[in-house]
Amino acid sequence: MNIRVNPWPNRPLFLLEGTLRVNDHTNDLRRSANVQWQHTAVSREERAHIKHQKPCVVWLTGLSGAGKSTIANCLERKLHALGRHTAVLDGDNVRHGLNRDLGFTEADRVENIRRIGEVAKLMADAGLIVITAFISPFRADRDLVRSLLPPEEFIEVYINTPLEECERRDTKGLYMKARAGEIPHFTGISSPYEVPLYPEITVETASVTADECAEKIVRYLRGLETIYS
Amino acid sequence: MNIRVNPWPNRPLFLLEGTLRVNDHTNDLRRSANVQWQHTAVSREERAHIKHQKPCVVWLTGLSGAGKSTIANCLERKLHALGRHTAVLDGDNVRHGLNRDLGFTEADRVENIRRIGEVAKLMADAGLIVITAFISPFRADRDLVRSLLPPEEFIEVYINTPLEECERRDTKGLYMKARAGEIPHFTGISSPYEVPLYPEITVETASVTADECAEKIVRYLRGLETIYS
Repeated sequence: MNIRVNPWPNRPLFLLEGTLRVNDHTNDLRRSANVQWQHTAVSREERAHIKHQKPCVVWLTGLSGAGKSTIANCLERKLHALGRHTAVLDGDNVRHGLNRDLGFTEADRVENIRRIGEVAKLMADAGLIVITAFISPFRADRDLVRSLLPPEEFIEVYINTPLEECERRDTKGLYMKARAGEIPHFTGISSPYEVPLYPEITVETASVTADECAEKIVRYLRGLETIYS
Repeated sequence: MNIRVNPWPNRPLFLLEGTLRVNDHTNDLRRSANVQWQHTAVSREERAHIKHQKPCVVWLTGLSGAGKSTIANCLERKLHALGRHTAVLDGDNVRHGLNRDLGFTEADRVENIRRIGEVAKLMADAGLIVITAFISPFRADRDLVRSLLPPEEFIEVYINTPLEECERRDTKGLYMKARAGEIPHFTGISSPYEVPLYPEITVETASVTADECAEKIVRYLRGLETIYS
């Protein structure tokens, strides 16, 4: 018979299952029996609990120039104002760091999204609300990230901005270069963008401000009780 | 003349410099002037501030079997009990996820530590106290991670356990395999371990319990005011 002792009597045992890692080294360093509980790993539920939130990954996807980074920053600002604990992953902090070894070949673009997904998962394990802002044009890549997370913790947000509008904005001048053939495999021009089939949220930036887009996402998170209060 | 407006009058401006990212897309989506402030990215200081802690990376290094994971879990448990916001990176959650594509060649081991360092940095940017538990045998790799972080935020902890003691424990049976020549490039046996020259903390697990080792680290963090109270 397998007897389990619940070290947190106020919390149901099922919440802890699968998160209590039994460490190989535990027996080596346990010199006094009364400190054994301290060797138990802190669970992801506990890390989220002290933040008064449920962790999740808000995955923004859309064309270059659709407004992903603007909405990500706006959303983080709103969540921060509500006292929520957030992280943002975007080209600024990933391309020059973790993924600096990757280029823009198809294999590298797949690996780019895979790593971002794994980091987002680790951050959700730490209890954070993670906001990511990457084109992530392929369904298979986005679905891979979804598969890493518990149900309801992956929130796919389609930033639906028509190509013509993105191209009209062309804030970075990339569409002009892509049209001139200077950038190969440019999403929307010479490489496909696979529209999400069942995104949790769709926002239309052509008719709504970034602020309103972010507010729509906040409302969704409230509905999920990701934000408790 | 360059006039700067401090959007958080209660906090010194210098804290904000370099963290206020001006987003390329800001102008596109700003449909009304009164929401402009919301497009300002949340700074790393702000993310840490709501957690009542200063972020840092507690980098545990030492031989296989030295006790890194046990001390990491024990330390996280103590910090969590103090209401601190933590994350742990170790072989369990990195090798089968983010770094699943890496093997044990020298190049892969360097890349393993590089990616872990980049993720730790991203998590510190999110305001967390990050604890890592990897052999990380090479000084150059550890120093690379140190260089990613602001001064005082990288805390190198040398888990000083004599090779004979690690080999005596041999909880995973790896030393026996390494001695039998079944594991090439095994740290301490057939590959060097470069002892930290100037670690912030050294703990000796042969004479002190894991609990006491973790307590020593907590005391150090209090001294740094990483933990405010």
